[in-house]
Amino acid sequence: MVVTNKRIALGLQYDGSSFSGWQSQPSGNTVQDHLEQAIRNFVAADLAIPLRVTTAGRTDAGVHALGQVVHFETMVERDPWSWVRGLNRFLPQAIAVNWAKAVPYEFDARYSAFERTYVYALHAGPCRAPTVAERAGFLILPAQQWFDVAAMQAAAITIIGEHDFSAFRAAECQSKTPIKHLYEITLLDAQPWLFFKIRANAFLHHMVRNIVGSMIAIGLGKQSSAWLATVLASCNRQIAAPTFAADGLYLMEVKYPNEFAIPEPWLGNSWLPYGALGFPPTKLQEAYP
Amino acid sequence: MVVTNKRIALGLQYDGSSFSGWQSQPSGNTVQDHLEQAIRNFVAADLAIPLRVTTAGRTDAGVHALGQVVHFETMVERDPWSWVRGLNRFLPQAIAVNWAKAVPYEFDARYSAFERTYVYALHAGPCRAPTVAERAGFLILPAQQWFDVAAMQAAAITIIGEHDFSAFRAAECQSKTPIKHLYEITLLDAQPWLFFKIRANAFLHHMVRNIVGSMIAIGLGKQSSAWLATVLASCNRQIAAPTFAADGLYLMEVKYPNEFAIPEPWLGNSWLPYGALGFPPTKLQEAYP
Repeated sequence: MVVTNKRIALGLQYDGSSFSGWQSQPSGNTVQDHLEQAIRNFVAADLAIPLRVTTAGRTDAGVHALGQVVHFETMVERDPWSWVRGLNRFLPQAIAVNWAKAVPYEFDARYSAFERTYVYALHAGPCRAPTVAERAGFLILPAQQWFDVAAMQAAAITIIGEHDFSAFRAAECQSKTPIKHLYEITLLDAQPWLFFKIRANAFLHHMVRNIVGSMIAIGLGKQSSAWLATVLASCNRQIAAPTFAADGLYLMEVKYPNEFAIPEPWLGNSWLPYGALGFPPTKLQEAYP
Repeated sequence: MVVTNKRIALGLQYDGSSFSGWQSQPSGNTVQDHLEQAIRNFVAADLAIPLRVTTAGRTDAGVHALGQVVHFETMVERDPWSWVRGLNRFLPQAIAVNWAKAVPYEFDARYSAFERTYVYALHAGPCRAPTVAERAGFLILPAQQWFDVAAMQAAAITIIGEHDFSAFRAAECQSKTPIKHLYEITLLDAQPWLFFKIRANAFLHHMVRNIVGSMIAIGLGKQSSAWLATVLASCNRQIAAPTFAADGLYLMEVKYPNEFAIPEPWLGNSWLPYGALGFPPTKLQEAYP
């Protein structure tokens, strides 16, 4: 008997506030742990195969995802919608599978991805906002103060391109190279909100939150626009501003070569202004019945 | 020595998902309990006065507020911004004071209010949305299905006005009269979102959630448009649809006579489309420094 494994890709959303990040830990309270447990529960007959889910982006504790993509292998055959419903039944409410798709072995959720886009949602003002707590970053600002967004935009332009991003890299980063290609930093100024859209081929550990922290220092006038390029050129993590809070960070979209026909992320159920941030109009996924 | 109490009004926001509603309970985990404890902590010298906070709307467990108004009495004199900062320091993160204001004795947060407005945020579709969990209602719908919003609007019009709303009243309701004046029901159709704005002089217990539940039955074609008026006329709670979930319900605004100069609610930090729902443009409150 020839046993043929299937490779399945999933589109995932999660609220990261109650999890210890993506990557499996002994505590078991990570997105990966919950997802692998849900797969084991759903395909009970499949336990003989070691199960390991691979992800496009190993998000940190507290970081959210609207367009996460993962893959795993299984001997079990199910139609896509059956995977979606079955896994959602076994997942915590804070994690949802949006779509499932059989993919060829050449597809790897991590290594086939050529672009990732994050959004950072920052709320700033004199008073915290309980109804977005843990789902947006917050900075106390006097009512009369706001960011110098033009200075932030000017700074952002100076770090676009292929660079050594060591200055924005966490010590525990496991990436093989600190050289990444940053394609875009767009700011959406909607006081008391400031949204950052950051797009690159890939990111170092804490890279988005360190760039956001440093841009905020510029927006508050603590540093000049020119300072961001100086930090980048230093390749020295000691110079950049502190890592900004995880609460406001969302993995929005991961892009793969067209040949894999990976569905676009389903952003319509999010509260973020995805249209104004240049994300495509939402559509329900092909996996939905 | 003459001791003069001051009456203080506060503007409150809270995420209701972690509290057992507004009204004080032995458990202590209600918004009222946390607020009264914060006031006691802040005005430590004031303990001799029995403290009781009165609210404009006794929201249920899981219900949120963006524009709640309350009042209490104290011998302690503080400037408004000191109340805001001091109480926020002692409150859980899920509750925030937006403004404070000394008010005359004639002001009563409950009895002076002549109008309350709620919004219900409903998300519907084939898959739950983790990044709005507990802050929006959710209804599973096949991807091809959507509400008959025109039928819902037609039904809504038939119950506007002053009526006996016993058909939408919870058994445990403490209101002296079931007769309320419903001024407005507006639907904002933004698939996969449906927002209900409901405005009245006052509401019975569960009234908004019972009306939302019944309108959803109409929107799904389970009942005709004409049915809502039949339910209302019956004055019989057994006929209306089940109470809809608390998760999506927000107390948005409470109105008082102009003489009290109560600040407008601060909605700018909310993720709801308050502008499209006809709420005034937000402004920072006078109490902010």
